[in-house]
Amino acid sequence: MSKSKPELAPLLAFGAHPDDIEFGCGGVIAKETRAGRAAHFVICSHGEAASHGTPAKRVAEAKKSAALLGATVEFIELDGDAHLEVRVVHAIKLAGILRRVRPGIVLAPSLVENQHPDHAKLGQLVRDAARLARYGGIKELRRLPPHVIDQLFFYAVTPEAEPPGITPMLMDVSAPGILAAWTAAMEAHGSQVSARQYVELQLTRARLRGLRAGIGHAIALFPNDPPVLDSLAQLGRSARRF
Amino acid sequence: MSKSKPELAPLLAFGAHPDDIEFGCGGVIAKETRAGRAAHFVICSHGEAASHGTPAKRVAEAKKSAALLGATVEFIELDGDAHLEVRVVHAIKLAGILRRVRPGIVLAPSLVENQHPDHAKLGQLVRDAARLARYGGIKELRRLPPHVIDQLFFYAVTPEAEPPGITPMLMDVSAPGILAAWTAAMEAHGSQVSARQYVELQLTRARLRGLRAGIGHAIALFPNDPPVLDSLAQLGRSARRF
Amino acid sequence: MSKSKPELAPLLAFGAHPDDIEFGCGGVIAKETRAGRAAHFVICSHGEAASHGTPAKRVAEAKKSAALLGATVEFIELDGDAHLEVRVVHAIKLAGILRRVRPGIVLAPSLVENQHPDHAKLGQLVRDAARLARYGGIKELRRLPPHVIDQLFFYAVTPEAEPPGITPMLMDVSAPGILAAWTAAMEAHGSQVSARQYVELQLTRARLRGLRAGIGHAIALFPNDPPVLDSLAQLGRSARRF
Amino acid sequence: MSKSKPELAPLLAFGAHPDDIEFGCGGVIAKETRAGRAAHFVICSHGEAASHGTPAKRVAEAKKSAALLGATVEFIELDGDAHLEVRVVHAIKLAGILRRVRPGIVLAPSLVENQHPDHAKLGQLVRDAARLARYGGIKELRRLPPHVIDQLFFYAVTPEAEPPGITPMLMDVSAPGILAAWTAAMEAHGSQVSARQYVELQLTRARLRGLRAGIGHAIALFPNDPPVLDSLAQLGRSARRF
Amino acid sequence: MSKSKPELAPLLAFGAHPDDIEFGCGGVIAKETRAGRAAHFVICSHGEAASHGTPAKRVAEAKKSAALLGATVEFIELDGDAHLEVRVVHAIKLAGILRRVRPGIVLAPSLVENQHPDHAKLGQLVRDAARLARYGGIKELRRLPPHVIDQLFFYAVTPEAEPPGITPMLMDVSAPGILAAWTAAMEAHGSQVSARQYVELQLTRARLRGLRAGIGHAIALFPNDPPVLDSLAQLGRSARRF
Amino acid sequence: MSKSKPELAPLLAFGAHPDDIEFGCGGVIAKETRAGRAAHFVICSHGEAASHGTPAKRVAEAKKSAALLGATVEFIELDGDAHLEVRVVHAIKLAGILRRVRPGIVLAPSLVENQHPDHAKLGQLVRDAARLARYGGIKELRRLPPHVIDQLFFYAVTPEAEPPGITPMLMDVSAPGILAAWTAAMEAHGSQVSARQYVELQLTRARLRGLRAGIGHAIALFPNDPPVLDSLAQLGRSARRF
Repeated sequence: MSKSKPELAPLLAFGAHPDDIEFGCGGVIAKETRAGRAAHFVICSHGEAASHGTPAKRVAEAKKSAALLGATVEFIELDGDAHLEVRVVHAIKLAGILRRVRPGIVLAPSLVENQHPDHAKLGQLVRDAARLARYGGIKELRRLPPHVIDQLFFYAVTPEAEPPGITPMLMDVSAPGILAAWTAAMEAHGSQVSARQYVELQLTRARLRGLRAGIGHAIALFPNDPPVLDSLAQLGRSARRF
Repeated sequence: MSKSKPELAPLLAFGAHPDDIEFGCGGVIAKETRAGRAAHFVICSHGEAASHGTPAKRVAEAKKSAALLGATVEFIELDGDAHLEVRVVHAIKLAGILRRVRPGIVLAPSLVENQHPDHAKLGQLVRDAARLARYGGIKELRRLPPHVIDQLFFYAVTPEAEPPGITPMLMDVSAPGILAAWTAAMEAHGSQVSARQYVELQLTRARLRGLRAGIGHAIALFPNDPPVLDSLAQLGRSARRF
Repeated sequence: MSKSKPELAPLLAFGAHPDDIEFGCGGVIAKETRAGRAAHFVICSHGEAASHGTPAKRVAEAKKSAALLGATVEFIELDGDAHLEVRVVHAIKLAGILRRVRPGIVLAPSLVENQHPDHAKLGQLVRDAARLARYGGIKELRRLPPHVIDQLFFYAVTPEAEPPGITPMLMDVSAPGILAAWTAAMEAHGSQVSARQYVELQLTRARLRGLRAGIGHAIALFPNDPPVLDSLAQLGRSARRF
Repeated sequence: MSKSKPELAPLLAFGAHPDDIEFGCGGVIAKETRAGRAAHFVICSHGEAASHGTPAKRVAEAKKSAALLGATVEFIELDGDAHLEVRVVHAIKLAGILRRVRPGIVLAPSLVENQHPDHAKLGQLVRDAARLARYGGIKELRRLPPHVIDQLFFYAVTPEAEPPGITPMLMDVSAPGILAAWTAAMEAHGSQVSARQYVELQLTRARLRGLRAGIGHAIALFPNDPPVLDSLAQLGRSARRF
Repeated sequence: MSKSKPELAPLLAFGAHPDDIEFGCGGVIAKETRAGRAAHFVICSHGEAASHGTPAKRVAEAKKSAALLGATVEFIELDGDAHLEVRVVHAIKLAGILRRVRPGIVLAPSLVENQHPDHAKLGQLVRDAARLARYGGIKELRRLPPHVIDQLFFYAVTPEAEPPGITPMLMDVSAPGILAAWTAAMEAHGSQVSARQYVELQLTRARLRGLRAGIGHAIALFPNDPPVLDSLAQLGRSARRF
Repeated sequence: MSKSKPELAPLLAFGAHPDDIEFGCGGVIAKETRAGRAAHFVICSHGEAASHGTPAKRVAEAKKSAALLGATVEFIELDGDAHLEVRVVHAIKLAGILRRVRPGIVLAPSLVENQHPDHAKLGQLVRDAARLARYGGIKELRRLPPHVIDQLFFYAVTPEAEPPGITPMLMDVSAPGILAAWTAAMEAHGSQVSARQYVELQLTRARLRGLRAGIGHAIALFPNDPPVLDSLAQLGRSARRF
């Protein structure tokens, strides 16, 4: 992969299951790492509740997939796959990771509740963790200095998880190298994609976004807070071609 | 003012009354023109229904104000102040201006209906005009080639006009020169601001936005369509400091 | 085509342009006509403002396309392509057509305003017409007895036109014959689809809906009013497969 | 009661308290069982926190009421009346019941939070349980094969519990036998309805829905996911008579 | 009726048809006039498009009904029943009435579009008129000094017309005299209520609101702008009894 | 302070941290106590997770601040600062306080989730507690008779915490004595306001509300349930001056 540029604060992505980040926003990761930004994944279960795949196999798939996207990866234990609950102790644990990795950009699954229950709960935990990481008086976190992230974006693992009422930022992932890396990263989760529909779902979503934007493929990220700009030239075109 | 950079497509701002652009987003204009982007104002009445100020005086104030912001200005007649209606003939007229000026960025008053009725109606007309400017077969527009803008943003003349359900883009207007230029441009509308509360309203709004973003002052723009990004580095920090 | 079953009240679909019905919900039409329901299209312009295609050519394309879907078609004049306005006289004209055709199901473009301006305006006119068709005292309509439709559904010509806040009804259009008829009907609009992206846009949308529902392809219709059911067995499965 | 038709997958309704199902959607139950669909109630407390009625009395009332509606009933213990919390262990317990009963249609209290806290929490648990019932790898559930339900509908025990942003499906419960069965089932909860206002509240709600739909009485159900239809003939009329 | 108290600025209610005010909020009118506030109705058509009743009969009914509520009434011509359009000339005409009557409280039909089209359009016209009445420079209005109203409330003629996203103010109309006056006023529209369902619809709505509030009957008004209070003691109880 | 009037049921305000009530709605408290209403604060942590200030210092500050506002104050322990979870045991504890204090008006932090996590969770707990306080059968609460509050209002500690979709009630806090008392109460939290921006944030918010309402300063409260009124004269003017 390309070298990491020190002036770009790292990207930190959280996933509830070994394949969530790749399916939800893998193309964004590929694009950022190829532009020189370091990326790190924190996966909060071993996918042990899925219908297919053993935990060991899924960890191996996730490692291969992260490598294809140019990211490093670690696994943590919260309550286990399909057992996640919103507990402050988890938010503090995630806040500790934020203080350690000190990212600029944080990605988490969206807060829409009508999806896999672990996704929305992890999104809540990450959002709260991003606040707790800033507060100086939390005892459990005192080993590491407070950290303020630049941006928290939510990704949507499925179309149903796209939050209404937030204007998305669309990342252009049309470049052949990016699209290929993303596709390969999804396919690396062989235990999940044998029927192929997961990959088709994501590529169809991205193609539809791309068609609407007049480009090839695009992935939507949903900002938790309004961006602050110094110039309108920072934004590119908008997505309306029909 | 600074020289216009040819690589930045011009900004075109529409106002229903001689002071709407300045009050709603004057600081944004100042920032963009100082960064080298050409700006042009199209004002769609002479403010003749206001409680204070003659049309002639208001035109003079608008010209002075636009100059302070580094923008050029023209006046057009639609239905007159407080008499604007949403007619296709108006949208086509505005589309013709879009084809002539060929802007990258277009600013228009927001579509929220519970404000001065001319504001929301002009916002609708500009939004429709941005589409009509693209269509090749409209007879009245055939003199000029179709034009596709990059971005349409709405500005809110008052807090009530801020549209719910759209994530704003916050422009940092804290630099002393920018804030001074904006304030001067608002005060140039002497017939309207004798009581001063209009200026205080806008500076209070911008200060509140700035406090929330951890900066001095900020102005919100509301995108009509999702932005398409090539890198997350295009966005700065997000606005959440409390 | 299959024979019309008299016990099924006809379907009446309104389009602002010669290809709107086909792109927005052509697969639904094919499905209903093949099930024995008569379908009739009312097209409210000749598409004369489009970048491509003469009115004569577009009328011919629409006739061919309607035939492929098993529907009859008529053209009416309101204000012309890209010139439509919401006038009561138009709503009354459409109400007169409703009284003449006496449909059970009515389809109209959605009311979302951030799309081609003719679409949302026609949607408003049809919705109002469906009420006016019921009122006994409207002079212009007295030649024909009042008519109460069963259901008004909105279709969305583009993804942006899908209304938030309404639960869609998803029509399964996966059967090969249906999908082929729909595709052929879209391609019959040769002046518009030379670049092919219109057809790809619609098939991609329908495939994404289908993937989410665990079927092949699906088209969303948005009810104007809540359906009244006599049994939950009237509804099939719901659309959630991920 | 009428015999159950094997081709209709059973209906499974969850209630937080012994009278919630009856008050929220008892007429729907009567209608479905009389059409030959088996119905089963799972009640998740004994109503021990209510101002009136002992647990023993309330269980007896619920049994009588369920019988009047043609349903079977079972009681389970989660955290107790007014003490329910959203715990994964509860969702898994409910998922186990879903795997055992294998319903087509599932009814649960709505997710609106500004109502009795047990209601919204049970709604969340049921929604999550409907997903967990599908996942093959959840250890606690391995005794029974995964199950995919057809439809999850929410019912609203009070008007305040009706969720905005979901198009309701209105069930016509006007037939005298249905209305009488529903009323009797509500009145079977004698410890709760001595003041009668609970029954009046529900009949007034249903009459208002019915008046709007041009029928006698109607009960609203709120689908969790869009219905998939094979024909528009599956839907009846829509509810708009004023 | 009771004498008008000069310290209470009059109430001015607008209706699109001769019976709208009575059906939508007649109980509120009765309550206010009996408390000593003058009330005046402005009716903007003669109801000539209705299925039943001649204009002359309907005017007579409206006069009788207004008298029963203690209000005066006038008729104006805009575009005619079922023909109303949102034109600035109409808004200015209504603004002139506002300047003449100089009300504190203004009532208008709600802005929800999925109802009789005249209702929402009149609501828009009144809302805009309330602004235009304040502007000093509108030529057509110069005969009368500007006027600032205290409060604009919307009433909903049908349940479908109740606007989401606005917290209603519930007026207690339970007192026997008030309820009787309201009922009589509705029944005075004999040409419309022969089938009785209009009256039943309104009383059912009000009873449902009343049950929820723990009182007899209540009517909801929807404020256009947030109320400003000097003390929380100004508000009574809130409406949540279940 | 002024004497408490026995006819005004007390106000009970809940805060998650020692300064939340003051920052969120201190001016409202000052206004109510000066009008003779007793006010009591329940603070649910000692602020021990903040970046500045020891628990002891913060308790002292809160006591001084409450005294400046004319309120009494008590501290309770739930899960600790930045550790609050939504547990039924907490809601029951708060319900016990409601039964003891027997307030008419209750204030709690808003339910918007994208703020300090303790705020929204406390808001949920208070809302649920207000219901539990009414139920006669909850064992833990049997020592004290049930209590029904008059009104629950939410306050917003930051602008981001203002709930969309609820019409606020604006309290006029412009009187010099009120504004001074509020400012002094905020400044009494010396450990938090050394940088002064917290105070400036709140006064800027209140000034912006005031400007919009045509008064000096105003604080928004968000009702949990619709108010029930006996006369429109109970409400003052509405907030729309631009």
